Amino acid sequence: MLNWNNLDTLASYQELSKAGCVKLAEVMSGENGAERVRNYSIPMAAGLTFNYAAKQVDDEVLAALGKLADEAQLLDKFKALYNGEVINTGEKRLVLHHMTRGQLGDAVTADGVDKRAFYAEQQEKIADFANKVHAGEIVNGAGEKFTTVVQIGIGGSDLGPRAMYLALENWAKKNDLFKMEAKFISNVDPDDAAAVLGSIDVAHSIFVLVSKSGTTLETLTNESFVKDALANAGLDASKHMIAVTSETSPLAKSDDYLAAFFMDDYIGGRYSSTSAVGGAVLSLAFGPEVFAQFLEGAAEEDKLSKEEDVLKNPAMLDALIGVYERNILGYPATAVLPYSQALSRFPAHLQQLDMESNGKSVNRFGEPVDYVTGPVIFGEPGTNGQHSFYQLLHQGTDIIPLQFVGFKNSQIGTDVLIQDSTSQQKLCANVAAQIVAFACGKADENRNKNFEGGRPSSIIIGEALDPKALGALLSHFENKVMFQGFVWNVNSFDQEGVQLGKVLAKRVLAHETDGALKVYSDLLNI
Amino acid sequence: MLNWNNLDTLASYQELSKAGCVKLAEVMSGENGAERVRNYSIPMAAGLTFNYAAKQVDDEVLAALGKLADEAQLLDKFKALYNGEVINTGEKRLVLHHMTRGQLGDAVTADGVDKRAFYAEQQEKIADFANKVHAGEIVNGAGEKFTTVVQIGIGGSDLGPRAMYLALENWAKKNDLFKMEAKFISNVDPDDAAAVLGSIDVAHSIFVLVSKSGTTLETLTNESFVKDALANAGLDASKHMIAVTSETSPLAKSDDYLAAFFMDDYIGGRYSSTSAVGGAVLSLAFGPEVFAQFLEGAAEEDKLSKEEDVLKNPAMLDALIGVYERNILGYPATAVLPYSQALSRFPAHLQQLDMESNGKSVNRFGEPVDYVTGPVIFGEPGTNGQHSFYQLLHQGTDIIPLQFVGFKNSQIGTDVLIQDSTSQQKLCANVAAQIVAFACGKADENRNKNFEGGRPSSIIIGEALDPKALGALLSHFENKVMFQGFVWNVNSFDQEGVQLGKVLAKRVLAHETDGALKVYSDLLNI
Repeated sequence: MLNWNNLDTLASYQELSKAGCVKLAEVMSGENGAERVRNYSIPMAAGLTFNYAAKQVDDEVLAALGKLADEAQLLDKFKALYNGEVINTGEKRLVLHHMTRGQLGDAVTADGVDKRAFYAEQQEKIADFANKVHAGEIVNGAGEKFTTVVQIGIGGSDLGPRAMYLALENWAKKNDLFKMEAKFISNVDPDDAAAVLGSIDVAHSIFVLVSKSGTTLETLTNESFVKDALANAGLDASKHMIAVTSETSPLAKSDDYLAAFFMDDYIGGRYSSTSAVGGAVLSLAFGPEVFAQFLEGAAEEDKLSKEEDVLKNPAMLDALIGVYERNILGYPATAVLPYSQALSRFPAHLQQLDMESNGKSVNRFGEPVDYVTGPVIFGEPGTNGQHSFYQLLHQGTDIIPLQFVGFKNSQIGTDVLIQDSTSQQKLCANVAAQIVAFACGKADENRNKNFEGGRPSSIIIGEALDPKALGALLSHFENKVMFQGFVWNVNSFDQEGVQLGKVLAKRVLAHETDGALKVYSDLLNI
Repeated sequence: MLNWNNLDTLASYQELSKAGCVKLAEVMSGENGAERVRNYSIPMAAGLTFNYAAKQVDDEVLAALGKLADEAQLLDKFKALYNGEVINTGEKRLVLHHMTRGQLGDAVTADGVDKRAFYAEQQEKIADFANKVHAGEIVNGAGEKFTTVVQIGIGGSDLGPRAMYLALENWAKKNDLFKMEAKFISNVDPDDAAAVLGSIDVAHSIFVLVSKSGTTLETLTNESFVKDALANAGLDASKHMIAVTSETSPLAKSDDYLAAFFMDDYIGGRYSSTSAVGGAVLSLAFGPEVFAQFLEGAAEEDKLSKEEDVLKNPAMLDALIGVYERNILGYPATAVLPYSQALSRFPAHLQQLDMESNGKSVNRFGEPVDYVTGPVIFGEPGTNGQHSFYQLLHQGTDIIPLQFVGFKNSQIGTDVLIQDSTSQQKLCANVAAQIVAFACGKADENRNKNFEGGRPSSIIIGEALDPKALGALLSHFENKVMFQGFVWNVNSFDQEGVQLGKVLAKRVLAHETDGALKVYSDLLNI
């Protein structure tokens, strides 16, 4: 029996609020600090490790977090989710993105089919299609091979797949697995589509139109944009486009597309990278085997999220520490700082994943909550950020918890030795140094050069960023956000907050406005 | 006589804190709302307009902000700055970035030269060099024209110039002013340099090495990376590289470079886009005339920042409203939301500009302040963000002030008419709709679909994003940040917070660590 109670009604939350706050500069110093780094560490899938030594927790706080996990029934709720209960209560939908990469519990039947079989079938169909494109069996109107794939989608149909593509592009090139360049068109700004179309050879491009409903304004507009370009080049658009959509959408059985691959209402856009939404573009770009490895990493990490002991469950512990930081310590934001240029758009993906899922003021029953929920998420790759906004992170008046990510090895492997170290060593030295600088600080008589320390961070460390590690990384954050949603008792799987703007924009375009909206419309020449 | 007093000692600040808070949903409704949008508007340079109707201010708050501006002596401090006083007290330096694009007050002599003449001379030298490259008078070792320019720099030597390049790339192509493609290498992650080098024709590339001190680790490392690549291709590196640095740096008079162009200690990295740091790469990419127009827009906007009436001074008013939001209303972050794909990296530049300048806990005398200073800055272009983190902005538990930017016209001009409107009209309709949706909200019995409203924003509206408008936009935010620094009584022009990490990283690379840092180093295989 699941109890969906607000966080502030839980006895364990009251207990947590009484736990003493750890002084990071103290506990991270000397041999005790070294011991702490060795101990406060959890193995993840694909050789990753989650290290939380530089978080403001100790055994007392961790014990309280464990009790909170129990009382909030985090594991039971996760179990209900993957066994097919209607967890997205607002939209009355199951939540099945884990099933795109494996089966964690019972078989789930919906819409008359076994859903694991359905997702696996889509993956297989995409694999078959991609293999035929790569083999030159599916070709353009002139019988020539496609060289470029262009994803047309926005939000979850853009950010996740784009971040994953960039994360693996150089890895694939290095490992001779790179099949086709991928580009992305998302914004309704006409300059977005025009610039992408101006940068590619449209005659050898295949376009992936991604919209679950088949009605997303930006995506349909950009489809027309692309069709115009194809027509202007004397090309038959239906020979250049495929669709990723739901089976009930208007795109599903149209002759306008070479093929259609399906997702469904149980996969939220921001959770869709491991579904056909990510599958089509990533399988075309890198081959189906690479996409399969990516799913494998995610599936392995998902299994770790079922672990009962919170100290062995990285996503759950990360989630709970985040709640402690947000609700007890009162920190407003979290910075995501991957020390890997390949993860340049990973923070933007997590920004959507987290802020769209848990940026809510009402609980899953629609009642206002009396505590803060999802924080602001932002970030850029290191070491770039060190020369930018880290000033505020080190010496600003607010404390911002940090999520570092680092890999022992680079993807391409080309490197230079300067001052007795490689660039990769410098990169890793910097992330190690930052953790300790933020935690311990450094006293200086000149207060302008003084570092208070006490600024918490965690780090996920891996061997190298490959498809499995990327899948595990993605799963970690998806499950972290899910667990936090359970703790805050919000529905992490709807997004009603994006509706009002859409309604008003339509009214502007129909010239059915008055008051302030009319004046803004005039100022913008609409 | 300037008084450098802390914000909380000012009588006008106490008065401001007693001003009643405006209910946005009320004041933005009906005909009064329309009137407000018409009135709360300030012309900027280059045809831009700053509209603050959707901010939580009324005439009472505005009057209090005016008094604060007076008591904090914002104009006098700006005057002292552009007349050459040592405003960067921490580093004992003048602050002269305005002079890279004009002269706002007295002639300033430093290092024995007139600084306006010095910056103008550098701009001229760069123009001459760029013209010769474009004319094929400066060529590679084989006597062939350069086709690509690659900037090697990090932080201010990367983010600003990169954001400006992306902002004008399509505009230049459309207007037949595009001369050379630009690429950027910044991160010490070896995959960054390797990927850029793998994507260009090195034999026809000219590299711009940018480091004021000539000692930035990342930049020197990446220079070696590039030199290796040139050597491997059998090319003479000195025929492919120019330097942008200070006259006293080791790079200034080296035979390793085709040419060297100079900035100085009075130009902070994050304020250097209008100096040689932005000048070299932008003049090479688009021609010196385009760069000159960009400076002209900035210079015109700078002049507006001298306006005494705060209601006619957009940067100052924006700054003061930001302080009101941060210190009186307690908002922790600001989102920057340009409705222009060309401004995709503009938020990242502002993130550095703002957070590195005002993310400080001590005043300009090194004494701790008892109030919050610079907020977290983040953002992505609209409409993309609408399908991502806007959920939290609309319905999250924290209120995040928003900075919109929108243009009536696209840069490229290619468009499609779908459902009786163009993409550009849809883009503009969306930004207009969002302002009103955030301000006014919409009641719904289903609390999950309820929008409280009361979420403040401002918008900068322009005709189209061209070089002058971009310059004006950049100047607006530079001056906003400067004025906020004056109000908070911090030194916005140093960045001591980035030092500790550098020191510790060196220690890691020298294997001179113990405790936690040693264990992290081991975990990361250094």
